[in-house]
Amino acid sequence: MVVAGQSKVSTVDVLISGAGPAGLMAANALARAGVSVRIVDKKFEKVEAGQADGIQPRTIEVFQSYGLAHRLLEEGNQIYYSAFYDPTPEGGIARSGRACRVLKNKPEADLSGSRYTYSITLHQGAIESIFLDSMAKEGVHVERSVQPAALSLSEDESELEDPDSYPVKVVLHNWDASGEAETEIVRAKYMLGSDGAHSWVRKELGFTMDGEQTNYVWGVVDTVPITNFPDIRNRCLIHSLHGSMMVVPREGDVVRFYTQLSDEDAQEVLNVKGRVDMTKWSPEKLLEIGKRQLYPYEVTFPEDKLSWWTLYIIGQRVASAYSKNNRIFIAGDACHTHSPKAGQGMNASMNDTHNLAWKLAYVLRGWANRSLLQTYEFERRKYAQDLIDFDRKWSKLFSGKPRTEQNKDGVSHEEMIKAYETFNGFTSGTGIRYAPSPITDTRFQHVAGNLAIGMRMPSQVIVRVADARPFDLQDLLPSDTRFKVVIFTGDLNIESRKAKLEEFVSQATEKSGFLTQYGCRSKMSAGWSEVFEVLPVLIGKKETLEYTDVPSALRPHWSKVFVDDVAVSGTEGGKAYSSYGISPEGAVIIVRPDGYIGTVVPLDGAAALNEYFAGFMKPGLLA
Amino acid sequence: MVVAGQSKVSTVDVLISGAGPAGLMAANALARAGVSVRIVDKKFEKVEAGQADGIQPRTIEVFQSYGLAHRLLEEGNQIYYSAFYDPTPEGGIARSGRACRVLKNKPEADLSGSRYTYSITLHQGAIESIFLDSMAKEGVHVERSVQPAALSLSEDESELEDPDSYPVKVVLHNWDASGEAETEIVRAKYMLGSDGAHSWVRKELGFTMDGEQTNYVWGVVDTVPITNFPDIRNRCLIHSLHGSMMVVPREGDVVRFYTQLSDEDAQEVLNVKGRVDMTKWSPEKLLEIGKRQLYPYEVTFPEDKLSWWTLYIIGQRVASAYSKNNRIFIAGDACHTHSPKAGQGMNASMNDTHNLAWKLAYVLRGWANRSLLQTYEFERRKYAQDLIDFDRKWSKLFSGKPRTEQNKDGVSHEEMIKAYETFNGFTSGTGIRYAPSPITDTRFQHVAGNLAIGMRMPSQVIVRVADARPFDLQDLLPSDTRFKVVIFTGDLNIESRKAKLEEFVSQATEKSGFLTQYGCRSKMSAGWSEVFEVLPVLIGKKETLEYTDVPSALRPHWSKVFVDDVAVSGTEGGKAYSSYGISPEGAVIIVRPDGYIGTVVPLDGAAALNEYFAGFMKPGLLA
Repeated sequence: MVVAGQSKVSTVDVLISGAGPAGLMAANALARAGVSVRIVDKKFEKVEAGQADGIQPRTIEVFQSYGLAHRLLEEGNQIYYSAFYDPTPEGGIARSGRACRVLKNKPEADLSGSRYTYSITLHQGAIESIFLDSMAKEGVHVERSVQPAALSLSEDESELEDPDSYPVKVVLHNWDASGEAETEIVRAKYMLGSDGAHSWVRKELGFTMDGEQTNYVWGVVDTVPITNFPDIRNRCLIHSLHGSMMVVPREGDVVRFYTQLSDEDAQEVLNVKGRVDMTKWSPEKLLEIGKRQLYPYEVTFPEDKLSWWTLYIIGQRVASAYSKNNRIFIAGDACHTHSPKAGQGMNASMNDTHNLAWKLAYVLRGWANRSLLQTYEFERRKYAQDLIDFDRKWSKLFSGKPRTEQNKDGVSHEEMIKAYETFNGFTSGTGIRYAPSPITDTRFQHVAGNLAIGMRMPSQVIVRVADARPFDLQDLLPSDTRFKVVIFTGDLNIESRKAKLEEFVSQATEKSGFLTQYGCRSKMSAGWSEVFEVLPVLIGKKETLEYTDVPSALRPHWSKVFVDDVAVSGTEGGKAYSSYGISPEGAVIIVRPDGYIGTVVPLDGAAALNEYFAGFMKPGLLA
Repeated sequence: MVVAGQSKVSTVDVLISGAGPAGLMAANALARAGVSVRIVDKKFEKVEAGQADGIQPRTIEVFQSYGLAHRLLEEGNQIYYSAFYDPTPEGGIARSGRACRVLKNKPEADLSGSRYTYSITLHQGAIESIFLDSMAKEGVHVERSVQPAALSLSEDESELEDPDSYPVKVVLHNWDASGEAETEIVRAKYMLGSDGAHSWVRKELGFTMDGEQTNYVWGVVDTVPITNFPDIRNRCLIHSLHGSMMVVPREGDVVRFYTQLSDEDAQEVLNVKGRVDMTKWSPEKLLEIGKRQLYPYEVTFPEDKLSWWTLYIIGQRVASAYSKNNRIFIAGDACHTHSPKAGQGMNASMNDTHNLAWKLAYVLRGWANRSLLQTYEFERRKYAQDLIDFDRKWSKLFSGKPRTEQNKDGVSHEEMIKAYETFNGFTSGTGIRYAPSPITDTRFQHVAGNLAIGMRMPSQVIVRVADARPFDLQDLLPSDTRFKVVIFTGDLNIESRKAKLEEFVSQATEKSGFLTQYGCRSKMSAGWSEVFEVLPVLIGKKETLEYTDVPSALRPHWSKVFVDDVAVSGTEGGKAYSSYGISPEGAVIIVRPDGYIGTVVPLDGAAALNEYFAGFMKPGLLA
């Protein structure tokens, strides 16, 4: 019962509805960026079992960029191999091969090569806890049992474009334990609907989910099996004569089994609307199917170990739009649905809001034009479309019948392996590339021929000059909302190179230079360091180099100067220039706050950087 | 004032006096082993500045074995290079070279090769906090302002040898804030005096400190310098015409400077007893000397950044004994004093009690004979003597005058580098080797020709068969008081090898076999897993191996079977057999609970392992 009377009225910069992975990634990133943010969820408690569980290599990199990957590594299971099983003439299954994320023919400079050569599996509740703990340090907590009941957006164009206005109005119902609700009216500058596949925000905005649905019905169980199946701790893709199965090992001894229902069984559980009716099925039936699919291997499922189960029907759909006037956004499952079996869903969702958060922060701080926000839908909706295209192909292969003597049109092991390798970069997340836009400027792509502007910056080990300590370059690019200006200087012992670098510094730091013009944001911190982190990477030998060799403007601290040399260990480092395709003439790489390469220019390209930042940034204090 | 009246009387298994690094290592290790332990310290507060600060590579490995290395890595500074400076004809100094812990001519199988290619520097208070936090999880806290006032040990031989007796009697004074003390009488099975260089316990036991003292006087300051000296973030060994200096960079921007006083200055601060009188000196004077020694580089020392300073005179001494009747022990600075400049002191101290703790736990549990405790003094006093021998040589070189045109007998750069490299393994801690004893059996050393029985087990990356996850072998050898039985099985596809392994398992697990005879300790856990962790390491390919290939007795869980193969990354692994010098015929390595290699036998050596454990273990339940 909603209690009548005077509603509380409040304001907030960003209101998030839905505290799943997408909402929590946003809330955490915004809270750490100092943005005023609230996150509400209609559910009384957080998820404790089941749901999503797959973290792909690029997502581990993203967690690492927030300083949170160690929790994934401590708590999660690591998957290195996918094992492929096919039917035997005897009516059982046998392994056709194992494949890993590191492809045998992978060149040194494989753009999609990840720091992490594995996926992580961990139940969604544990992943959410990582964000909850991080947010708590910023004083932000999820407000549970709170449900948006009405939503409106101003239609006044000038109000919508006014950076200081609160054009979003949301009525919240805050339910208490006795089943009564208080209402609150929240006026927000921005709102995010990360409220799942049945998104209320999406429906309020009138966006449709466009795409198709198949007749493939699958069941999922999380349990702890007792088995002699030798690949029980690898991800397994099993084509059996009794339908397909996927095995996903998880934290501890838990294993998730995906089992495909036969066409007849699928008919049984689908209701007249084509939706799955779970009351017509049971986890016991799923486990029985699983036993047949794994034959001749033996498996038993202790009754007390079943922690979660569900059924689902495969469909692929993308929302017709991601944003209303760049004031209200949707993200995560609210935007895209597809099959869970490539372990992409939670990754797509969290990377949606990882993409959005820094853009909101920049606009809210008054540093960037509101047009920056358009790049969210531009980049992430295109990605979602690629994802459902991939999922359609992959699901068809995986849910299809296997090739046998009797069924020569079935799916062969070779087809599966080819698809696995083709989509490896995409499913790892490291192969995702954003198209040219105001924040993705590819004019000088040739200056770093092995990097791809629009892809995330791959890592290489470089060595800090002052103390010879090796660093993964990615660890110098944290998600701290700053743009990273990575200056590959070349060898500063060559006079012409040193002169070129000094000229770059002079142009970048003069009044109209990008470091000064866009970097100086507050009187408290007159330098550019709120917006830009500048990292010179030299060519030379750590044994003889001195960090004082670099122009003093580029080393506000001894810790900021690096060299592309082999580390003291002798086993890593010294491959940054070559793997990135940067010549000894040098280059300047702009890495966006989300870790993606914004642009690359030659060392005489300071003017091009002025143009790049002018495309979306507002001039600062000293401009 | 000590208050008269009835004293409280209590018992404890182990009473530790002194909560510095040696005492805390012991208290933490014993608490985690489930031993009843108390630790008292006469000081009111823990150390917050100054004191020791150097953690050597082997000590990082030891922290890692307790799951605590991440704290060192997060909080500490890493030192890769030592930079050597010598006088120039112009009267200043110039760098002669830089040297690192990874020697250029180091073979793959260098026995002293560490997982960590650097030292860590961090002030003693932070290191103590790591232990305090870990102990707190076990419910053990330091009792401060508590001082032992009297100590006695039973002279009754049968009581001393009775494992259940409490032959140590200690009177404690527990001081309160008003300056009054309550007395408590503690009866302990064992006592540890880790109460520093002026150890009260050592004096009570009547042990002497044997050795010599030099006339070299040095000063130390911890500060944050402003300087153009390019090696300020490397450890520097500087021979100047104004005396020697050592620079030790520390956490954050702190730097420790060791500056040598001239002979005249040294005379000024030494009193008639040959002791240093700090009232005759000041930190300002030390900094003035430092400025002269660093010339022509400029350095200023902001007044508000001086956090600690002291003076000391170099001497090298070792205690005449380490134990009274193997009931009362001393450890750490109470046993050995030497110069601080090779960064050894805190490492020697913590490794003393790392050595002692598991032995105490075994005897207290009734698993081992009391004779096991003799190996503490045997192993650690010999090490201390080696340490002061090294320190005598090193101090002489470092405090000696530099070689110049005018002083051709002075110390040359080449002599310094030679000594640095010669002592590299020793100072890293990875080169320390315990001599043969009941727990160090070298009969079958040839079976693993590149390992050294008595040295710590070096790490190699091996791959877990069930899920292809790579592990540093050392991470499978935690300091959990268990002996690790690492079985290098060879290739189990060869029938004769598999038969040999099955024969070993059969012999090891029969009633008189070592796993059964010494491993079964309680009815609660009838297996051997309280005492032994068994880890098979196969030869084979991770792509095709199955963990179910190993005899089931050797895989109580899927996570216990490994293969010596290249990891999925392609950049590590596959070198364990070759680097350890183990042939495809296999070998069994016994790693002690402290990470040191106890013995090695061939795969048909189960009987030799029975003998090894019979040398110090008591038979268990099933024997």
